[in-house]
Amino acid sequence: MKFTKNPRNLIYGRHPINEALEAGKAFDKIFIQSPVKSESLREIKQKAQEMGIVIQGVPFEKLKRLTNAVHQGVAGYLSLIQYYNVEDILSQAYEKGEMPLFLVLDGIQDVRNFGAVVRTANCFGVHAIIMPKYGAAPVSADAIKASAGALTTFPVCRVNDLKESLTYLKNNGLSIAATSITEAKAIEDCDFNLPLAIVLGSEEKGVQKEQLSLADIEINIKHQQRFDSLNVSVANGIILYEVSRQRKV
Amino acid sequence: MKFTKNPRNLIYGRHPINEALEAGKAFDKIFIQSPVKSESLREIKQKAQEMGIVIQGVPFEKLKRLTNAVHQGVAGYLSLIQYYNVEDILSQAYEKGEMPLFLVLDGIQDVRNFGAVVRTANCFGVHAIIMPKYGAAPVSADAIKASAGALTTFPVCRVNDLKESLTYLKNNGLSIAATSITEAKAIEDCDFNLPLAIVLGSEEKGVQKEQLSLADIEINIKHQQRFDSLNVSVANGIILYEVSRQRKV
Repeated sequence: MKFTKNPRNLIYGRHPINEALEAGKAFDKIFIQSPVKSESLREIKQKAQEMGIVIQGVPFEKLKRLTNAVHQGVAGYLSLIQYYNVEDILSQAYEKGEMPLFLVLDGIQDVRNFGAVVRTANCFGVHAIIMPKYGAAPVSADAIKASAGALTTFPVCRVNDLKESLTYLKNNGLSIAATSITEAKAIEDCDFNLPLAIVLGSEEKGVQKEQLSLADIEINIKHQQRFDSLNVSVANGIILYEVSRQRKV
Repeated sequence: MKFTKNPRNLIYGRHPINEALEAGKAFDKIFIQSPVKSESLREIKQKAQEMGIVIQGVPFEKLKRLTNAVHQGVAGYLSLIQYYNVEDILSQAYEKGEMPLFLVLDGIQDVRNFGAVVRTANCFGVHAIIMPKYGAAPVSADAIKASAGALTTFPVCRVNDLKESLTYLKNNGLSIAATSITEAKAIEDCDFNLPLAIVLGSEEKGVQKEQLSLADIEINIKHQQRFDSLNVSVANGIILYEVSRQRKV
């Protein structure tokens, strides 16, 4: 997980971090000096864990690299955006009588691709993006820029376990569609006119097996030069366009 | 026109530049100290002009910023790729019995967007990309990276006048389709099953009037949130997908 060196959302020191946690502020990540020796650090760690915040144990040197100030063994990046719950978004969509459309990002770590995907999702009326807490692109200033600002208002849900979230969506009436290059249906032959969660994999690895095993639909974007693959944000645009085209009819 | 500070394809000095011109090497741009005072610089300028190379008159300081070596009033960026002729590509397409598909980039200056567009064009079997000599994104190492390497083999045509090239294509049986946000047809209602040149404009300005006046088809990619526009490389992907979908039927 790469972070831009942007100290504006970095806070450090036991008291400030504690205050922020007490106030219920969202963190992208908290770094705690490891091994944890003092009682106050142990308390911070426990509180953060209970709030579901990503915690990373690091040596003293790593904290020194993050800030030149006195960090007292703890520093953290405040979230630049607010996160949402999958459950809330889904019930809101059903309440409004809209056909649910979720985008699930599986292993997309490139900040610009992530931002570009959010920008397009916003254009095509996707209800929310779901991404894992660990191993996803950070919601950084660069990601916000690549999203043309969409990230500041678009609902993003961070979850512990993608498979668990997909199972939840499946149990609540959604079909799972995942991009795949083998044994997949041509995209124009897929039926997207139903409640849907689309899983996008990274360009290198594609959708991971755990998630692929839950897929009801496997999508392949056929094109003439099969050896070249599309950029993930372009593939996302094509899929969302096809969904929108089918639903309009 | 921004250039990466990459000295690997920069050559300078009267003799080396002259040699390269004599050998018929392609340049992205040649910088000549202005005003041109010596006879040998005047000859270089004339030769470069005859070869259709972009020439920029610059003060001594600009050349000094390009290279610390003795530049003798002239420096130039060798092209990283080979350029093609529109006429050749079109006749080859017709000879092969293929339905022509050209992509015309009007004012796209962002290097990463340019590379991404080429990557997608390559996937969807576009015959060539046409771009203007002046005011287009440079074919730099960054552009090649963003194209996932496609730029090194994909046919790119650089032309003096986009309108002239579009008129040529029109006279040779192609329809001109341009992206537009006003009075345009929804993309799924456009007929793309014919010889086609698609004109993409920049995100800021769109397709310029001169080119838009030649358009037979004006395309609009409708989506729910009208106030947000799509990234140009995503819009390109959607259009090429729709062309490919229609032609397959």
